[in-house]
Formats: sequence, structure tokens, C-alpha cells
Amino acid sequence: MNIKKQAEQGIITDNIYAAAKKECLDAEFIRKGICDGSIVIPCNKNRKIEKVCAIGQGTSTKINANIGASPYHSNPEEELQKLEAAVKYGADAVMDLSLGPEQIKIRREVIAHSPVPVGTVPIYQTGFELSSSGRNIEDMTINDFFNTIRNQAEEGVDFMTIHSGVTREVLAKMENQGRALDVVSRGGSFLISWMRRNGKESPLYEYYDEILDILAEYDVTISLGDGLRPGSTVDATDRAQISELIVLGELTERAWAKGVQAVIEGPGHVPLNQVAENMQLQKSICSGAPFYILGPLVTDIASGYDHIAGAIGGAVAAINGADFLCYLTPAEHLKLPTVNDVIDGVIASKIAAHAADLVKNVPGAWERERAMAKARKTLDWEKQIELSVNPDKARAYRQESEIGEDNVCTMCGEFCAIKRLQN
Amino acid sequence: MNIKKQAEQGIITDNIYAAAKKECLDAEFIRKGICDGSIVIPCNKNRKIEKVCAIGQGTSTKINANIGASPYHSNPEEELQKLEAAVKYGADAVMDLSLGPEQIKIRREVIAHSPVPVGTVPIYQTGFELSSSGRNIEDMTINDFFNTIRNQAEEGVDFMTIHSGVTREVLAKMENQGRALDVVSRGGSFLISWMRRNGKESPLYEYYDEILDILAEYDVTISLGDGLRPGSTVDATDRAQISELIVLGELTERAWAKGVQAVIEGPGHVPLNQVAENMQLQKSICSGAPFYILGPLVTDIASGYDHIAGAIGGAVAAINGADFLCYLTPAEHLKLPTVNDVIDGVIASKIAAHAADLVKNVPGAWERERAMAKARKTLDWEKQIELSVNPDKARAYRQESEIGEDNVCTMCGEFCAIKRLQN
Repeated sequence: MNIKKQAEQGIITDNIYAAAKKECLDAEFIRKGICDGSIVIPCNKNRKIEKVCAIGQGTSTKINANIGASPYHSNPEEELQKLEAAVKYGADAVMDLSLGPEQIKIRREVIAHSPVPVGTVPIYQTGFELSSSGRNIEDMTINDFFNTIRNQAEEGVDFMTIHSGVTREVLAKMENQGRALDVVSRGGSFLISWMRRNGKESPLYEYYDEILDILAEYDVTISLGDGLRPGSTVDATDRAQISELIVLGELTERAWAKGVQAVIEGPGHVPLNQVAENMQLQKSICSGAPFYILGPLVTDIASGYDHIAGAIGGAVAAINGADFLCYLTPAEHLKLPTVNDVIDGVIASKIAAHAADLVKNVPGAWERERAMAKARKTLDWEKQIELSVNPDKARAYRQESEIGEDNVCTMCGEFCAIKRLQN
Repeated sequence: MNIKKQAEQGIITDNIYAAAKKECLDAEFIRKGICDGSIVIPCNKNRKIEKVCAIGQGTSTKINANIGASPYHSNPEEELQKLEAAVKYGADAVMDLSLGPEQIKIRREVIAHSPVPVGTVPIYQTGFELSSSGRNIEDMTINDFFNTIRNQAEEGVDFMTIHSGVTREVLAKMENQGRALDVVSRGGSFLISWMRRNGKESPLYEYYDEILDILAEYDVTISLGDGLRPGSTVDATDRAQISELIVLGELTERAWAKGVQAVIEGPGHVPLNQVAENMQLQKSICSGAPFYILGPLVTDIASGYDHIAGAIGGAVAAINGADFLCYLTPAEHLKLPTVNDVIDGVIASKIAAHAADLVKNVPGAWERERAMAKARKTLDWEKQIELSVNPDKARAYRQESEIGEDNVCTMCGEFCAIKRLQN
């Protein structure tokens, strides 16, 4: 039986126990959240996850790292290094967004090696396979898509992004209104091409119930993709985005009715004063389902530093209801990230998540701040390094300064304020 | 006559014209802001600033980069490289915080080479000179301090941090309350040592009027330092911090009465949900004087990445009233920053400032976002690079991807959403 259906019957599964224990929360609290849809635990009947995590209301802020090859750069070994780095620096989940000739091989390796939940965007596989066989995404039949998701679910994927909210009506809203940057979602662009070519409703919306049936069979969580997310702050919170969100709200309740756990994906590029509003809107429109956001980026001009623009948006989003932050790396908008970019992205998201967890009073968050204050007060450098978000970098910085065994740092030297007032 | 006194007589000085023109603002608006104290233009009668800037209500968010040597690491050449990098990447002002044997030499070089306003913390010089002559900061007389500020003003320093708000009463509030991390301000620790040793009121408070007279003589702006700023999120917005802020509010009005422009320095380490409140409190307590903040850091654990934790706090602060963001570099809490750390710090602050300027609807801010959206829509990579916050890094990332002349990137390759829907 699915985790959601079991929770509805009052059963606390092993995954619920594990997720609750990890966060010092009451298992019953998590069970109730899964019942009412405000919490999900991504999982798959065919896979045991080593590091289970609960995402949603009342839990700590979780982060996801996107990895995966592209048609222009594919190296399975490198993707496993990215997985390892992402998990080492604190990613709670990863998505393998591979698209290209090695996509199946890479996904299998990622699933085999990942201690955390693994997500995918199945339409990438469908699109690539059609393209490789001389057809196009516009030729996709719903069976092509069913085959992909069944195949991926069978292999153990824990959550899948499916853009069923990109409907003809939502597309018409966008066309009618006009945008500075139209569509930036790959999945969204596939479906829009399909609808324009075929003049019909999107099969991912038409056959949504059947999609849910397959997901339910494997207990896979649906991540309702936002194909029309704004790709520029200029387009943020527009009629197209909110129209799609309304459809996602309806699709959430249909997922729940079939015992499928659901999270909602969100923007994108959003000016800082619209971030809180976007979070609150999602919660009310989607009946409290967890919100999984990309950034949001609070400006378009941070290419090379989108991890920073995303951390600003992510922190503010998380204190206003966002539950799950998808990282952005410095490579966003420029190229496929390297292992180092993955590390920078994970760390920036962890900082945003922790800053929010202080506000949310998540168990353990303030203890860590207090421990750092104590380590600084006592000039205990080893402890400061250990408590920092990336001890490797903190240690390297201190060593580079050639301070040796001195108990101050090269910023103030003997004029250190803390040292002066220590006695 | 001082800029503030001239403004009060209805005179629009050259500096006011230059600052207004730079921002496409009305010069009369800036003049009025200088009259009521809500805007400052740091300057010095003995120096002509190439890139004048107005800081405060209704202007764009400004950023400051701290440079300067320390007793443990001193290299005048390197400090000039930091100055050049800071200005290149967009710092509106710099502070030379040099403390050590070469402090005077470095300051003179920085003033000679800086196209932007230069600030200092004069008590560092006084403290170092006392220490070098076998005495201690506790032996400081007010004449030692007068000599330093007169000397620095004579040389052309445009704004000076002076911690006159660290009084015996404020110190008693801190001692009475207890803190996780006491005092982290160097200047603050000097004055507390002095008061404890001498059992008297701080001379910087006792002789505040005389200090103002010297600043007024050279038209130097006072930056009222926050010696008791919280050095840990645990201590944020405590009685000690707010007691000092109240004194700073009183000192602001006394500065204005003598025709001295004033900005207020602010925290420090502040949890994200207290940032807005801190900004609003400063504005009401300090009669609308510009707020010059360090970060704020929204967590203590980001050593190695404090530029990111500071950008989160800075962006939220700036949309809630902060006018002037002092950058933090990745080296904060660990060592004296290198040139590369300075660049990372400036860029992170620029992202925060620009994100806020979108919300504040600063002239030109949205034009840049719209231009970026257009460059992305047309896959115009050269334009995207040019519009990004650091074109050097954006270009390097694109080149490293070995994409050549292709008009997509290695993230999606031919499956680029924008390309797919371009026609």
C-alpha cells in the first residue's frame, strides 16, 4: 500500500519513522502531514532510500541539486562525482536531468549510488528517444510517455516532474498577454510544441489520471512542473504563471485522491517584493501542498552568480512557506555545471535554508548558531571550522593566511576585539 | 561653506548636480534630502571626488568595499589592487581600514588613487600609534584622537567612522544583559577597554561637539559606528544594540545642528525575520538618517561564504530602508581578504543592491532586466555577457564550455526551450 494511503489509515511506516527521527519531530506529526498533503516523503516501492527526507509544513527546509548530462556534454563518471559532492555538502535530494545518448545509463548509475531521493523529468527521455529515432516531440503519443514513466518508476525513481498544468487554456493566456521571455522550461516547450503542431489538448493533461495510476503503482511522488514559470523578473507573477498554478492546484487534489503524493514546482525569476506573495498564493491555491521552487532568482543579471541571486530569493521564499529549494549553480544560464559549480550551488542553498530554519525555529538550527558564537568567543578555530557550512573551504582560507598556531586571524591580528575583551 | 549648510540655503552645489545626474534624479530632490538629513554626499573640502555619490532615501542602493592592511599582513601594492578591483566591479565607496606600520602610507595612496569617496576608522590609527609608542589604547587622550581626525581630514578622507555611541550607560546595558558573543567591533572594543580602565565616560562621547567641529571644518561626513553591533544572530536586536542606536539618534541631530552630514552604521548578524524591523527602527530612531549596514549576516555559520549570507541580509535590508551596504567577502571571520575575495564581495553586494533597486524602482534598474530578457529571447550571447554583473566571469564560463559559435549552451543543447519556440 502507498505511504499516503497507509498514513490515512493511521499507519506510521518505516519511512515516516526515519524522516521524523532525522529531524527530532514527532512521527505522528509527519503522518498527519502526509494525510493532509502538506508533507511528502519521496520514495519508490522498488528502492530503499538510505537518507529519507520529509518535505513540507513544519519540517526543516530541504534542498535539491540538479545533476545530469546534456546532449553537448556527457560524462557518466562526472555525474556520479556531482552526486557525491551534492550529498556530501548537504543536498537532501537530487534530480538527474540527463538528456542525451547516455541518459538511461546515467540515471541507473545515479539511482544505484544515491543515498537520497532521486527525481527525474521523464519527458526528457521521451523527447530524446523520439528525436533519436527520426521523429520529433510533436509526434509523441501518450503511450510513448506512459512507457517512459513506467520504465523509470520500475527502475526506482522517487519523484518525477510532470508538466500536466501546461494546457491549451493556460497557453492561450500566455499568448494573449505576451511576455518578455516566453517559455524557459524545457518540458514546457516540448508540450507547447506538441499542442501547437497537433492542435489538441496536451496528452499529459488529457491522460493525467492514467499517469497517476502508474505513479501510484510504484508509489512515486509527482512534482507538478511549472512549464510557464517566468524566465525573467519582467514576467513574474503574470496571468500565464498564475493560470497554470490554478490548474496545478486542481491536479494536486486529483493526485491525492489516487493516493499519490504531490509537490508543486514554482518560479523562476521573481523580484524580491513578490516572493512572499508567490509563496502564500501557492499555499492557498494548492491546498497547502509543499512548494518546490527554483531559486527564485531576484534578478536576471546575475549570470555567473545565480547561486547568490537564488539564495536571496530562496531564503525569503523559505520563511514565507517554500519547503524545498532547488539550487542554482554559478553556471546557470551559461553552461552545464561542473562538480565545483555543484558544490557552490549546494552551499548557497544550504545557507538560505539554514537562515530560514532559524526563523522557522527548526530543531537544532539555533543550537548550531549558539555553538558558533561560543567557538568565536573562545577563539576556538577548529570548532569554528567544523561548524561552518563548508569546513573544507574555511580550513583552506585559514591555512592560506599563514597564521599558524596564533589564536587570532589576519584581519585584526593582535587588535582582535574578542581577544581584547576576553578577560 | 559645508554642503549641508549650502543645501539649507537653497544652493545646489556641483557635488549635488553630479550625484543627481549620475542617477537621473532631480538635483532639487537631492538638495532637499541633504537638508533634512535623509541623503548624504560624502566629500571633503580638500579633495575632488571623480565619482560622487548620493546615499539615502530615494537614491539607488550604494555599496562600500572595505580594504586595508592588518598588522599581520601589509602590502600597499595589494591594497591598491583591491581598490582598483572594488571600483571596477562597482563599489560606490571604499573604506581603508588599514591598521599597522604602513597605515598612513596606504591611506595616502588610497586617497590619491580612489575615484570614489574614501572612509576610515580613525581610532585604528590612534590605537596603533599608542601601541607602537609603548602605550596602550587605554592611555588615549582626547587630543590624541583630535590629532588623528584632523590629520586624516586634512589628507582628504571623505567619511569617518566614529563610535561615539559606545557610552558607559550603553556598556552597562550590555553587561547587565549578557551576550553570546559580547563585542566584535574593533573600535567598540578600544573604547570599552578605555572606559573600564579609566572608570570614566568615553572621550568620544564627552568631546563629541569638538569632534564635530573638526569634521565640519573639512566637511567630512560622520559615520556613527555601532560598537555594540551583534556579532552573532543569537545577540541580534538586543537591549545593548538598541540602547546604542538611541544614542546614535541623538548624536545624529547634534551632527546636523553643526552642519555635519551623518550616516548610521548598523548590524551585524541578524536573523532574516528581524532584518526589516531593524531597518524601520533605525529610520524612526535616527530621524531618517541614511543607514549603512554590514551585511547583515542572516546566519553565523557561513564562514567562507559570508558574502552570500550578507547578500541575503543586504537585499532584504535594502528593500526595507537600508541605503548603503557594506560588503562582506568570503574571507570574513577567517582572514584578511585577497583581491579575488574583494571581487566576490563587491559582486555579491551589487546583486543584493540591484535586486533591491528593482523593488525601489530606481531609474535604469528595470531597463537592464528588460534588456537581459531580450538578449536571452534572441539568444544574443554577447549581449547577455555584457549585461551580466561580471562580464569577465560570464564570458569565461561560456568559453570553458567549448560551445564555440553555437547559439545555445551546453545545459540543454539543441533542446533549448527558447530556441524551440523562437519561430
